[in-house]
Amino acid sequence: MTEAELAALAAQALRGLGVDRIQAEDTARILVLGDLFGHHTHGVSRLESYGERLELGGIKASADIRVERVAPGMLKVDGDNGLGAAVGMRALRAAMEAARESGIAIAFARTSNHFGACGPYCWLAAQEGFASLVGSNATPTIAPTGGRDTRVGNNPLAIGVPRPGSDPVILDMAMSVVARAKLRDALKRGESIPDTWATDREGRVTSDPKAAIDGFLLPFGGYKGYGLAIMVDLFAGVLSGASYLTRVNSWIDEPALEQRIGHFFVVIDTARLGSAEWLSGRVADFAAIVHETPAADASQPVRLPGEREISEMKRQQRDGIEVDGTLVKKLQAWAAKGRREA
Amino acid sequence: MTEAELAALAAQALRGLGVDRIQAEDTARILVLGDLFGHHTHGVSRLESYGERLELGGIKASADIRVERVAPGMLKVDGDNGLGAAVGMRALRAAMEAARESGIAIAFARTSNHFGACGPYCWLAAQEGFASLVGSNATPTIAPTGGRDTRVGNNPLAIGVPRPGSDPVILDMAMSVVARAKLRDALKRGESIPDTWATDREGRVTSDPKAAIDGFLLPFGGYKGYGLAIMVDLFAGVLSGASYLTRVNSWIDEPALEQRIGHFFVVIDTARLGSAEWLSGRVADFAAIVHETPAADASQPVRLPGEREISEMKRQQRDGIEVDGTLVKKLQAWAAKGRREA
Repeated sequence: MTEAELAALAAQALRGLGVDRIQAEDTARILVLGDLFGHHTHGVSRLESYGERLELGGIKASADIRVERVAPGMLKVDGDNGLGAAVGMRALRAAMEAARESGIAIAFARTSNHFGACGPYCWLAAQEGFASLVGSNATPTIAPTGGRDTRVGNNPLAIGVPRPGSDPVILDMAMSVVARAKLRDALKRGESIPDTWATDREGRVTSDPKAAIDGFLLPFGGYKGYGLAIMVDLFAGVLSGASYLTRVNSWIDEPALEQRIGHFFVVIDTARLGSAEWLSGRVADFAAIVHETPAADASQPVRLPGEREISEMKRQQRDGIEVDGTLVKKLQAWAAKGRREA
Repeated sequence: MTEAELAALAAQALRGLGVDRIQAEDTARILVLGDLFGHHTHGVSRLESYGERLELGGIKASADIRVERVAPGMLKVDGDNGLGAAVGMRALRAAMEAARESGIAIAFARTSNHFGACGPYCWLAAQEGFASLVGSNATPTIAPTGGRDTRVGNNPLAIGVPRPGSDPVILDMAMSVVARAKLRDALKRGESIPDTWATDREGRVTSDPKAAIDGFLLPFGGYKGYGLAIMVDLFAGVLSGASYLTRVNSWIDEPALEQRIGHFFVVIDTARLGSAEWLSGRVADFAAIVHETPAADASQPVRLPGEREISEMKRQQRDGIEVDGTLVKKLQAWAAKGRREA
């Protein structure tokens, strides 16, 4: 399927579920970017759970997303329990508009839901010359360092820097060794997992994906990964006015409940720092220094954050995006429902 | 020694080396905070190398630090090769002033030097109600993931969120498993190091601190730690207009050369988001959820980032700060030089 076809299908499916045009298109944009980056767990496959929650009323199809500018460079966004990516896109656009005046702006979003991956927002910001930091909190799945209970989410954080006329550098990561979706994938395929990924309910390391799903993910880098998860929650949950830590509802266990998660978007107008040529030249020099590092394995050249994702994007834009047949049928059924009712 | 005595001695030593009063006091403030947090490798002991570099002309004693406001919420600071902490304090103050108007502000500093630890800046910002992100680049000591050469610095990053009327939450970390200073400490004490800390020059893991100092530090969490080091350098080095990666000079190998490193300071005025009571109540609730996590080891309760440092600060504010006698003599000699010349 081409990028445009997949985006159209995803948006039509959401329209069929009662979502307005802009929110449907914004959500489709973020999810298709997730697929393009090769993060299919954060691509249109997410519409299965979004669709279920829209049908159950756990996510509001006709959300009235509101943006309040509380300072020249600061926005508070109330998502009204709408689709997370629709809330996220609205917040990102508002932040970029404010940053064109202030040089930097931050949007805090609350009363939101799962908003896809963070990297796509940094990608879109970079297309318009903005460096960015984007984060979200999430259902708790990680135990604090030294603790025996899941209290903090596997809160994702992405950081992007544009390279005018070429590809930006984007680091997109969650705080666990692997994403929770990989446990679900292993379970689906009936495979075991490395015992460095997660523990069971009692805090014992496990290679059983089912036990790991019932237990908790291990943070990367020990207390540093745990510490980052905490700071992202303080920004995305506490400062935003959203829920945080164990006060966030699980979209898996309780799909009909509001999650009330939050996000933050910091965008920085690099045009205020120097010309596009200046920045482009500096990032190119920076990239060259990294790329020229002698590789430990000659077949694996040293890469910058995001390079794998961007090359995956180019490949799929050329060859098409492979989408699971069952998912396509489900999306088509939702889309048809919209046309019947229209 | 009390906090005030140590700060006065550090400032007098810098005055003796020709530094003006404000820059000397700012530098002393940051270094003493490093000691108070228990990070003695980033405390007044740093004055040994700062002093050597001031005497050699590698750092300029009479730096003309300039702040340019390029947008309502954005500042560019030229450190004129002055003391890093003097540049940092100037940038932090300018950012806080701008953020009081814009809600958020960022200061990019260039032509600077080692500026102490990042945590003290977040601490000072939190005292005035600002959440913050502070980072710096550094002499390259880390190999990119998959690479066999040091190309990126062990770039520190700190993130802080204030809790009005009580202690802020501050995560302060570098990107290696341990700080480079720990290798120098082990060497000084003639001890071996765990083989997870660093590799030798050829990229082989080592437990010899001397070989490790000649080799490179391992990033925490593999490519995630490496990726964060890269992003901090893109902000602190590339966007700021400073040097970056291997273009940064080593203060150890070439103390008489300008380092030309850079820093960034993002500060966010939390007063625009809600009252002090609102924020204080939310952070208290957040902290309670974390603290109530059942501990794996009952004698080691679960902690928030920065709690160890802040309790260390309170202990030393009560009991005094222990300072190495040789260092005190050196500082007194520099201070006396200032008085003789005055």
